[in-house]
Amino acid sequence: MSIDLKSKFLQVYDSLKSDLIHDPAFEFDDDSRNWVERMLDYNVPGGKLNRGLSVVDSYKLLKEEELTEDEVFLACTLGWCIEWLQAYFLVLDDIMDESHTRRGQPCWFRLPKVGMIAVNDGVVLRNHIPRILKKYFRGKAYYADLLDLFNEVEFQTASGQMIDLITTLVGQKELSKYSLSTHRRIVQFKTAYYSFYLPVACALLMFGENLDDHVQVKDVLVEMGTYFQVQDDYLDCFGAPEVIGKIGTDIEDFKCSWLVVKALELANEQQKKLLNENYGRKDQASVAKVKELYHTLNLQGVFEDYENKSHEKIIKSIETHPSKAVQEVLKSFLGKIYKRQK
Amino acid sequence: MSIDLKSKFLQVYDSLKSDLIHDPAFEFDDDSRNWVERMLDYNVPGGKLNRGLSVVDSYKLLKEEELTEDEVFLACTLGWCIEWLQAYFLVLDDIMDESHTRRGQPCWFRLPKVGMIAVNDGVVLRNHIPRILKKYFRGKAYYADLLDLFNEVEFQTASGQMIDLITTLVGQKELSKYSLSTHRRIVQFKTAYYSFYLPVACALLMFGENLDDHVQVKDVLVEMGTYFQVQDDYLDCFGAPEVIGKIGTDIEDFKCSWLVVKALELANEQQKKLLNENYGRKDQASVAKVKELYHTLNLQGVFEDYENKSHEKIIKSIETHPSKAVQEVLKSFLGKIYKRQK
Repeated sequence: MSIDLKSKFLQVYDSLKSDLIHDPAFEFDDDSRNWVERMLDYNVPGGKLNRGLSVVDSYKLLKEEELTEDEVFLACTLGWCIEWLQAYFLVLDDIMDESHTRRGQPCWFRLPKVGMIAVNDGVVLRNHIPRILKKYFRGKAYYADLLDLFNEVEFQTASGQMIDLITTLVGQKELSKYSLSTHRRIVQFKTAYYSFYLPVACALLMFGENLDDHVQVKDVLVEMGTYFQVQDDYLDCFGAPEVIGKIGTDIEDFKCSWLVVKALELANEQQKKLLNENYGRKDQASVAKVKELYHTLNLQGVFEDYENKSHEKIIKSIETHPSKAVQEVLKSFLGKIYKRQK
Repeated sequence: MSIDLKSKFLQVYDSLKSDLIHDPAFEFDDDSRNWVERMLDYNVPGGKLNRGLSVVDSYKLLKEEELTEDEVFLACTLGWCIEWLQAYFLVLDDIMDESHTRRGQPCWFRLPKVGMIAVNDGVVLRNHIPRILKKYFRGKAYYADLLDLFNEVEFQTASGQMIDLITTLVGQKELSKYSLSTHRRIVQFKTAYYSFYLPVACALLMFGENLDDHVQVKDVLVEMGTYFQVQDDYLDCFGAPEVIGKIGTDIEDFKCSWLVVKALELANEQQKKLLNENYGRKDQASVAKVKELYHTLNLQGVFEDYENKSHEKIIKSIETHPSKAVQEVLKSFLGKIYKRQK
């Protein structure tokens, strides 16, 4: 991705922010305008912006020629709507997970003047999306489809978060509930739709496509999203903290990680007992025992094998798609994540 | 409102709930289906249902003749969307306000197995609205308008909640920030749009009207909503707990109540000092001093005067409306709340 595109993308953020803090549907005063501005700057633009930038990249590949100024602006705007959606989920997730840091700074709700107001700030972030869409897309033929898309993807994400939360429910620590199919279901709904399908779907709508004709695209992207999350689970345990930017705590947090699911699949009775006794405990001795078991079961090798097979399968699936331009979009996505270290 | 209508309305709830827990956009298993069903039953139907029923009442008055089965179902469905919106706000508000009870039972997030999962449940409730709208209104000419309406009203409500929260910010207890205009702004955005304007706007859309032609209706309903909230503030202090069903705590909670705003307006320097020293304190002696000052300033008389003038003004405003049917809708609304004791 070019430096130019990224700086253009960030310019569009400033413009959207300015719209929102002068939105005529609400009577702002200085306090509320400052609050929203600070809240947006803290929560929206600080990530890698991959999801947002992907909309522009995908649209470019679909169009196969130079974009107009207007098209760049609209694609960036849809990209930012995804970043807003992400910010909304992260602000609320951090409250639910009692997290401490996010993107190298304290979680928004941890700031002394914020606290539980963060719940409403999450809601405000979410409400900004239809404000933005209405301002720039109300006249487009695909406006209702765009609203439907964001609504459907948000619904799927919240539903995925729900199964994640009720599966991990405090006090009900039963590893027996963790299986490959539970893992896939959580990942697909909680992450894959909004992170992988949504950016491409936005680009397709802008390009005038009907999403009902692109079920195959959705399936491939959800598959990629699943692969991405398996990588994430792997890096949480085996990645270098100085590279991934955080110290993983999936074992302590009793997360339904791909690793524990695989371990349960491969373990003998005695090893299962060890997992049941040590998984989800905060003490370092328990964590070390789980990690040792992961090594004994050669989960690093199992992961490498999964990674290669999954990549191969996704490539094959992409190459059956009738449109070369769509193939390019999907391959460009896959290229960004294959064998990533962070 | 007839008993028939209410039982019909509750039947529609069961039908919508069944749609949602079998929504093909999500792969439910027994755990997640049971969770959603329990969460809905606990949070959605337990209130007075006034907002929801108003959609049906209003649509009836607009149509001026018997409704078809289908029209009754659709009007009930829109009514339930408003009740879902209300449930979403209440679940999250209770978390932010650290409330203990709601509608005579513990707040949802207070249940031992729920806790902070309630944040996501709020999000799920919100996401049910577009699911319902899509299923039953996707083909209607006013579908996009309906989505825009719910989005705009939700945005206004969240914005109103934001100014309420940042105005009441813990540790920044400055009564000087409380004025009649702050009070009006909070009430208008946080309550009036969704409780008063939204039900009538839903009925107007279903009736084929363009909402841009009904700015006067919006203004009257927002005025009624403001009057309703002033009553609420009054009853919080002067209502009979056994009638209103709860013990008011606005004084303890440093709320920007109409009463404290009026008191600040009428008080001399010494009385202002008393307010500043005692408003927002949890101890009963401070609360008693504030209440005594309210009596000294004759806020009961000031309220009665406000109530009469406000009623008169709203009636006049309604009577300038060109359509008799619309006048009926607005008068029926006002009739439900004028001089209410709970």
